[in-house]
Parts: sequence; structure tokens; C-alpha cells
Amino acid sequence: MSEAAQTLEGWFALHDFRTIDWSAWKQADAAEREQAAGELRRMMEEWASVEAAKTGSTAVYAIVGQKADILFMHLRETLDELQEVETAFNKSAFADYTLPAYSYVSVVELSNYMAQPGTDPMQNPEIVARLKPILPKTRHICFYPMNKRRQGSDNWYMLPIDERREMMRSHGMTGRKYAGKVRQIITGSVGFDLWEWGVTLFADDPIQFKKLVYEMRFDEVSARFGEFGDFYVGNLLTSDKLGELLNV
Amino acid sequence: MSEAAQTLEGWFALHDFRTIDWSAWKQADAAEREQAAGELRRMMEEWASVEAAKTGSTAVYAIVGQKADILFMHLRETLDELQEVETAFNKSAFADYTLPAYSYVSVVELSNYMAQPGTDPMQNPEIVARLKPILPKTRHICFYPMNKRRQGSDNWYMLPIDERREMMRSHGMTGRKYAGKVRQIITGSVGFDLWEWGVTLFADDPIQFKKLVYEMRFDEVSARFGEFGDFYVGNLLTSDKLGELLNV
Amino acid sequence: MSEAAQTLEGWFALHDFRTIDWSAWKQADAAEREQAAGELRRMMEEWASVEAAKTGSTAVYAIVGQKADILFMHLRETLDELQEVETAFNKSAFADYTLPAYSYVSVVELSNYMAQPGTDPMQNPEIVARLKPILPKTRHICFYPMNKRRQGSDNWYMLPIDERREMMRSHGMTGRKYAGKVRQIITGSVGFDLWEWGVTLFADDPIQFKKLVYEMRFDEVSARFGEFGDFYVGNLLTSDKLGELLNV
Amino acid sequence: MSEAAQTLEGWFALHDFRTIDWSAWKQADAAEREQAAGELRRMMEEWASVEAAKTGSTAVYAIVGQKADILFMHLRETLDELQEVETAFNKSAFADYTLPAYSYVSVVELSNYMAQPGTDPMQNPEIVARLKPILPKTRHICFYPMNKRRQGSDNWYMLPIDERREMMRSHGMTGRKYAGKVRQIITGSVGFDLWEWGVTLFADDPIQFKKLVYEMRFDEVSARFGEFGDFYVGNLLTSDKLGELLNV
Amino acid sequence: MSEAAQTLEGWFALHDFRTIDWSAWKQADAAEREQAAGELRRMMEEWASVEAAKTGSTAVYAIVGQKADILFMHLRETLDELQEVETAFNKSAFADYTLPAYSYVSVVELSNYMAQPGTDPMQNPEIVARLKPILPKTRHICFYPMNKRRQGSDNWYMLPIDERREMMRSHGMTGRKYAGKVRQIITGSVGFDLWEWGVTLFADDPIQFKKLVYEMRFDEVSARFGEFGDFYVGNLLTSDKLGELLNV
Repeated sequence: MSEAAQTLEGWFALHDFRTIDWSAWKQADAAEREQAAGELRRMMEEWASVEAAKTGSTAVYAIVGQKADILFMHLRETLDELQEVETAFNKSAFADYTLPAYSYVSVVELSNYMAQPGTDPMQNPEIVARLKPILPKTRHICFYPMNKRRQGSDNWYMLPIDERREMMRSHGMTGRKYAGKVRQIITGSVGFDLWEWGVTLFADDPIQFKKLVYEMRFDEVSARFGEFGDFYVGNLLTSDKLGELLNV
Repeated sequence: MSEAAQTLEGWFALHDFRTIDWSAWKQADAAEREQAAGELRRMMEEWASVEAAKTGSTAVYAIVGQKADILFMHLRETLDELQEVETAFNKSAFADYTLPAYSYVSVVELSNYMAQPGTDPMQNPEIVARLKPILPKTRHICFYPMNKRRQGSDNWYMLPIDERREMMRSHGMTGRKYAGKVRQIITGSVGFDLWEWGVTLFADDPIQFKKLVYEMRFDEVSARFGEFGDFYVGNLLTSDKLGELLNV
Repeated sequence: MSEAAQTLEGWFALHDFRTIDWSAWKQADAAEREQAAGELRRMMEEWASVEAAKTGSTAVYAIVGQKADILFMHLRETLDELQEVETAFNKSAFADYTLPAYSYVSVVELSNYMAQPGTDPMQNPEIVARLKPILPKTRHICFYPMNKRRQGSDNWYMLPIDERREMMRSHGMTGRKYAGKVRQIITGSVGFDLWEWGVTLFADDPIQFKKLVYEMRFDEVSARFGEFGDFYVGNLLTSDKLGELLNV
Repeated sequence: MSEAAQTLEGWFALHDFRTIDWSAWKQADAAEREQAAGELRRMMEEWASVEAAKTGSTAVYAIVGQKADILFMHLRETLDELQEVETAFNKSAFADYTLPAYSYVSVVELSNYMAQPGTDPMQNPEIVARLKPILPKTRHICFYPMNKRRQGSDNWYMLPIDERREMMRSHGMTGRKYAGKVRQIITGSVGFDLWEWGVTLFADDPIQFKKLVYEMRFDEVSARFGEFGDFYVGNLLTSDKLGELLNV
Repeated sequence: MSEAAQTLEGWFALHDFRTIDWSAWKQADAAEREQAAGELRRMMEEWASVEAAKTGSTAVYAIVGQKADILFMHLRETLDELQEVETAFNKSAFADYTLPAYSYVSVVELSNYMAQPGTDPMQNPEIVARLKPILPKTRHICFYPMNKRRQGSDNWYMLPIDERREMMRSHGMTGRKYAGKVRQIITGSVGFDLWEWGVTLFADDPIQFKKLVYEMRFDEVSARFGEFGDFYVGNLLTSDKLGELLNV
């Protein structure tokens, strides 16, 4: 059986980055702003009830720098539900004060490199929980997309599976050093978006993002085979913080 | 006779991705929206009657994420007809509520690698049907453009035809594993657009897009020679779903 | 004498791609549209009289897909005349309903690889006609810019002239197979624009663009040394077709 | 202990480049302009008091050329504070006359290549001062982001630490020649932004930026392993100069 | 003493490319247009008096194609003066009818490859004149930025100085063939802008730009080590021509 067929997929993911149109927000009158903020709050309550029902999960973070102002990260059972969430947002009054900044479509994935032969992973509750994760609400988030390189003698997809497995195992050891400090959710985007994977990291101390990603860069699998897109870093938007953000 | 001359071409293809200008759509009054939606419905009926007459085919999908909202994929006999479809859309009231997002011009193509010498493929009804296909109406679509790499020792166009044929044959075997799950339409765009080919996949289960593309990436023809553009994934827009999408 | 010095140059070329602002066009009233279309028609008559006087040539095509709506390809004696044509267009009422989409500045060029020593090519009326060509009015056009690669061991500019000449000769043989089907105008843009050459192809059957470019891609000169920009394909805009295009 | 773990981090950094919307600024009436400029002055006073309290530092420079008009470079204890500074700016009246141009998120970093074993660097006041620096107010600034290359045989992250340390040491020697002329602040952005590091240079004579960067380019660590983003150069915006800049 | 330290720098340079907003220009009434054109004329007179005083130089050209409409190339003693020129332009009424198109910041540079040991080049009036040049007013201009490549075995910065000097000498010989036809001004932008150098060529016959750049491309220093940005070509804007350009 081929390697690809053994990959496990869970919830679909939409990373939806939005920029606030601050001039429009300030020009709106208080009633318009209150209505828009109210619609946003109601959507967030809805997302929270989906999470409570364990049929999905949503995390909301403020992004630092000009790339975006808010990241809405949604996990849902189907692509249709993701699109519904996105469309509902677009139809909300709050959306009129935002601009699309960047989005990423993927699906929660567990790679097959560590699979134990002869077992059915979907019978393992721990694995199922990792495929349908409730997103952590840590103080900070980090997102970046990545590819495995296929270039001259550094071609990941031409390596024998044993070499790939050994490099991934050793890479996993680096990650494990950060257990308790950084939680990592890998989403696969082959067939769905520009890069092959999205990496979303959660931590209370953002310096741990830097230390983890930097230390991993010396692993052969990253050093020779990792190609990275842009990095986004953000701060948790609790409803208090969201109120402050939108208060003008 | 040269290899290129044996390629078979069928209907021309326009992948027309559009983004809805949600602020304008919401600001329009109900009558304006109804007129615009009505014009879109009439265009869709026209496209359906072209399809019924087997002089072309059109598929309409909602795209997930910010890259676009709707994909109109049109197959027609000539480039002139494609441009007429595009211009008619641009002149419609509905177009005023959309922005161009991305487009791709190509032509349905069957490669010559599997050609049987001594036969005239255009006398084969199965081949003709594949060159002028009625687009499936599966629940999901995936589109991406691609090139064959010409880089240092990984130069597809410098390989002897036998090596290319063998790699394509083996690649086709990977694709065949997904028969019944994924339907694939290859369109050639050499001379027409930025990449050399467009790949459009149709499936009811979108995870099969990921599994197919990922498994193929380990085929030498993709691992060493495939260069991929952006990936777009979407959900079928039945007229019910379209009504829901546009209902504000 | 150096190779470069032997290149022959003729008329300067401006490929001027424009996108129609359909919303603005539809919002204009009939009188405004008639005035704008009238100014465009008068410019086209002027260009036709330049062509009749053999002091330049202009071709007008509708581009398929979202990259542009109209290509105005102008050949003129000087860069100053090209800029005058461009400025006159910008000052016209019609220009207010268009947006710049892409442009390319180059000069009609005959390469020196086939030069016969001891002859003065400018005394050859056939060569002069090719340097100052009246643009064909075929049903379709294809434009793309290109470079000769300078990368590692695939460095065109480091090859001895004999190797280059032999590859160009063999490449020319491929082109000659399409005589009568495709007419090709090469313009040089070294020192004028982003790429080194522009290639403009004219044909009544657009599939011939694909077959020609694809077949050439297997020539060593393209396979190893060709780097290609974006491809634009279009349909001839006769004045009837132009009337239809602008009729709303 | 791994190399990465030894890196020292100090204050977080936001390079916030803004473009002035000159048309809007000129169209505003004198009272509106005065209010907006007043809000900017009050923010600058706030930033100055943060600097006086040694809980952060801010530098303000006018950027030469069209890439941006003003650079606000902020150092703060936390990512949350950086975002608060950014949000306060966005909410100010002055922000309505500016457009985002570019931003960069990073953290002041000291590399571990020169670490003396057996000592705790955070007990060293000089090191702490370098991690939480008050930004110089030299007449000119230069900013650029960079990566260490991972390409074929030029893969920084595959080198043994001794080779890397030796190259960094020799590179540092080049930098030391410019002591007293150029002050350099390195910020790490692995996990935070597109590139791995940001380099901010301060000097009274801008030619020293050119001489330093050019001389360093011949160091093996730059020649073989340096990949550079865009460069921004600017002039100190004292409050007098800021008044002149905004005076219309 | 290092190679870099011997480079000679003169006046700072700003290439300021602007696009005319033709719709706005045409919509303005005659008095508004006259005021805006009058402010532009007064700035041009000011620049001419700076040139007369030999404290700087300015050239104004119309760019062919859609990349820009006008290039203002300014040489001044300091970065501060360049920014003042730029800001004065932005504050002018004429600027309201233009959009920024592209800019480049650099400094006039003489490379040290030809330096004669034991002499002080700044005592040489010819060298000083080349570092602070009055810009030619030829009929045409050509501008492009460039890098020296650092890629695998084609790494300019890893070559011994003797090899570099020999390649530069031979490259200079190619340039000298065009003496009297093309005047070349090299500006260095290491530390100032995206590329390492800007090349500005002046000629009455624009075909000489093409011949010079093309012939040089076969020099090993360009063939193996030259990386080129976009090329801009333009026509001299005398005050008559400027009047014509702005006359609607």
C-alpha cells in the first residue's frame, strides 16, 4: 500500500486573515459600529457553540504588523461548512469594515511516518482527538505554510521512505523538546492551496515560536528540504481584547 | 512525425474566477439584486442549453477562501465563443457586483504518449467524448496549472521520448487507482496562458483530491519534473446553493 | 566584428494591453459612449492611414480571459511616435473607460545567425519588408516575451557562436514546418523592457499556436535555454466585432 | 545543549513603514491637519516617555523614494505592547492620511556564536543593554531583512557549527572596522516574519551604509550564504523636520 | 586596505518614475490644469538653477509604455536634498494628477577596479566631474538596475580580485566601443535599494541602447554574473514636449 494512502485527515481548516479598514470604522457612527460589533460577537458565540458541540473549533487572534489585523482560524467537518462560515462573515455588517488579507485552505493531517503497522489508527481516541482538535487558546499564535523541496539533489519526493521516516523521526524529537511550551497543528493543503502544508503553533511565550522554528531549521529535513512561506504572529483576542481593539 | 503533432485537442476552456463585491451587493436594493441575480440565472440557463446541445459545457462552483468566490468553467468549440461568454458576463448587471480574480485559457488535450500507432484517434468515439466532455457535476472541484520542469539535469524536454512515455504510463497507473473517485480533465495551455497545462479534478469527496495529488507527487514525473501553480478548491453551486449564496 | 553589431532592427513596437472598465462603460449614457467609441474609431482610421502610407502598422485584437480586453499592437518608425500614439490614446474619451493591463516595448529584429557574409542585408527588399512589416490581420494572435537562459551549465551567452547558430538553425526548421499556418514577428527588447525578446504569432487556427510552441519546446534551444513570460491569446477585432464588443 | 537554545532575545521590534496620502493631506483643511499633526506629536511624546522609562524605544525617520514616507521603528517588551502601539496609531486622525507601506516583526537578538562558555550572559549588563537598546538618533537609518541560504552546496544550516562560528567571527571583524561610524541592531524574525533576520543600521554619514554592506558582501558568510530583501534608507525626523514635512 | 573601501561616491541619485492620472487631468478645468502645470514648470526652473550652480543635476524624460509616464532623475549632494525634492513634488498641485510608479535610490559611483595605486583620485578633476555629473540631455534615456550573481559556481563575490578586475576591464572595452554614441552613469545602491547598481544610459539613437546591452551580455561578467531588473526607456521631455504632453 502506498505511503500517501496512509495519511490521516480530520477537520478541514480555513485560516481567514482580515484587515480592518480603520478609516471606514472611525467614520461610521456609534450605532453602526455597535451593530457591526454586535454581529461579530454573535458570530463568535455561534462558533463557540460549534466548539462546545465538538463539531468544529475556531480561534481568533490579532495579528501584529501590517499583513492583517485579525486571524479567524476555523476547523469544520466539511469544506461546505467552511464556506458557509466564510460567507456568513462576508454578509455581516462587520465585514464591510474589513478587507481580505490572506487565506489558507487545508485539512488537519497526521502523517503516516510514525504509523504502527497492524493497527487501525481511527480506533485510537488520541489520534481521533488530534485529527479533530479543539484549538488551544494560548496567548499567542504563529502560522506559516511550507513545502518539501524538490530541487536537484535535494528532492524529498525522490528519497526512499526509510530516509524520509528517519529524518521525520529526528525532526519530531526536536519538536518534543518543546512539549508543554508549544502546541503544533499540522494541516495538509496538497490539492487545496499553494503550499503543501500549513503549520499553526500555539504558545503563551512567543519566543518559543522562534526557538522551535530556528532549532528545527538545523534538522536535515528543514535545512535541506524545507521551503517556507510567510510567517504570521498574533495575540489572543479575548472578547475583552476585541472590545478594546474595536473601541474608537 | 514529431511528438507534438500527435497531441489531440478538443474544446477550448476558460476558467473564470470571480470575487463577489459583498459591500456593493449588500448596498444594492432588493430590486437591483433581483435583476442581477435574474441575469445570472438566465446566463446559466443559456449555458445549460449549450450543454444540452453538446456544443459546449459549463460548471459553476463556489471557491473556498479569499482567492475567489465563484468559478465559472466554460468549454466551447472556439476561442471566439469563449470570449463571447466572457463578454456577455461582463455586460450583465451581476458582473457589476463582482471583481475579476483569476482566469485561465486552455484547450482540452489528450497527450500522445498512449497513442496506438496506425489508428486514427478521431474515429474513436471514446476519445472524441474525452476531447469534448460534458463537465461532471460532482460535489467538489479542484483546479491547478502546472509545467514540466526544465532545470539543470531535471529537464523534461531533453529526455528521450521512451523515458517520458514510461514515466507518463506509470503516472497514469497512479491516476487509475482513483477511477470512480476522481475524474480528471487535462487542458493544454502552451501558447495560451502562463503554464503549460491546467488540471481540473472532480470528486464528491474532496479528500480524494489531496490523496491523488499527494500520491502522484512521489511519481518521478511529478517529483522531478512537476512545477505547480496555485490550487483552487470549491463546492458545487447548484441553483439552490447559488440562491443561498446571494441571499442577504 | 562582434555578433551583436550584426543584428538588424526595424520598426519600434508597442504592445498596449487594456482592460475595459465595464461598470463605468455601462454607467455612461449613450451619448458619452458614442463619443468615446467615435474617438476610438477615429484613432483606428488614423492608424489605418499610417499603415496605408507604410510608415507603420497597427493590429487590434480582443484578448481572451481576464488579463486584458484589448491589445493594440503598434509598429512605428521611432520611439517618439510610439509614445505619441500612446499619449493620444490616453487623452481620448475612450481611455477613461479602460485601465492599463500590460505593455511591452521592443523593436522588430532579424537575428544575425543566418546572415550571409559579404552582403548588405539592408539592400535586400525582402529583409527590409520583414523589418518594417504590415501586421497580418489573421483571426487570432498570440504574444509572449522570452529570455535566453544564463544558468549554471545552461548559459546561452557563454556558448560559442557555432553552437548557437546550429541550434537556431534547427529551431528555424521547426518554425518553417508551420509556414502558411503561423506568421511570426520577433521583436528585440534588450535595453527596452523586462525580457530580451517578444514573440508575436498570427494564425487563423489558434491550435497552431499551441502546436508550434509545444513542438519548439523540444528543440534544445528552447528546452535548455528558453525562459518564457506570460502568454496572451486573442481574436481579431474587426470594426464589426469592435462594435459588438462595445454595444451594451 | 543545542545551538538554537543559546540565542539571546530582548525587546520585540516593529518596523512600521507608512506612506503619506498627499492628496488627502492637502485637501484637508488647516484645522483637520492641525488635529492630525497634534495627535501624531502626542504619540511621539508618549513614545519618548516610554523611552525615558527604559521600557522601550522608538525611532522615526523619513524614507527616501516611493517605498514609504515615514518609518516608525518601535522596540517594546512584548508583542502585545507592539500591537497596542500599532493600533493606537491606526486609530489616530493622522493615520487617516497615511497608507500602510511595509512592516516587519522581529525581536532584538544576540547570536550565540561569540558566547563564552560557563558564563550567564544575562548577568552581563553590557549584553542586557544590547538586548534592550535605546535606538540611536543618528542622521540616517538603513533597514533590510535577510536569510541564510539553504541551496545546493551553499546550505548554511548544514554546516558544522565550527565553520559557521569562524565565518561569523570573520564577518564580525569586518563590522568592527565601522565602529564609531555605523551602529548595527540585529533582530531575529524566525517564526515572526518572512525573513530570518532584520538588520537596522544607524549612521550620520549614509555612505558608510554602502561601504559596510558592500565590504561585508565579500565575506564568505554573505557571498555564499546571504540572501537579502529590499533596502530602505532614511533621514532622521526630528520634530522640526516633521513639522516641515507636514507643512503644506 | 579592502577593495570596498576604495570605491568612490559622488552625488546621490533619485530616479522618480510617475504615472499621469489622465482621467483626473482631463476632468480638471483649465485653470486647475494651468496652475498644476505652472507649479511643475517652476520646479523645473528650480532644478535648472541647481544645475547651473553645479550643486546637482536633473533630467526629465517621458517613459514609453504603461510602466510610467515621466521619469524625474535627480542628482543631489545629500539624501536630505533628494528627499526635499521628492517632498516638494508631492506637495505640488501637479502631483495630485500623478501616481507613484517606481523609484530608485542610489549614489553615483566609480568602481575601484581601474584605480591607479599611489594616486588620490579625488585630486583628479576628471574623476570629480564623473562623480558629480551634469546629466546629458540626449534624445533618449535607458535605466535598469542590476546585481552581480552569487549562485553556485557563478559567485562574483567569491572570485579573486584579479579575475574580477580582468572581467571588468574587458567589459569596459565593450563599453568604450560605444563612446560618442552612449553615455553611461553607474550608481551604486548597496545599502540603499533592492539591487546593487543602477545603470542609466543616454543616447540620441535608442537602438544603441539595445546594441550596447546586447553586446555586453556576451561578456563573461554579464553572461555569468549579471542579473537584471526591469528596463525603462524614454524620450527627452523638453519644455515644448512637456507642454504637448500635458495639453488636452
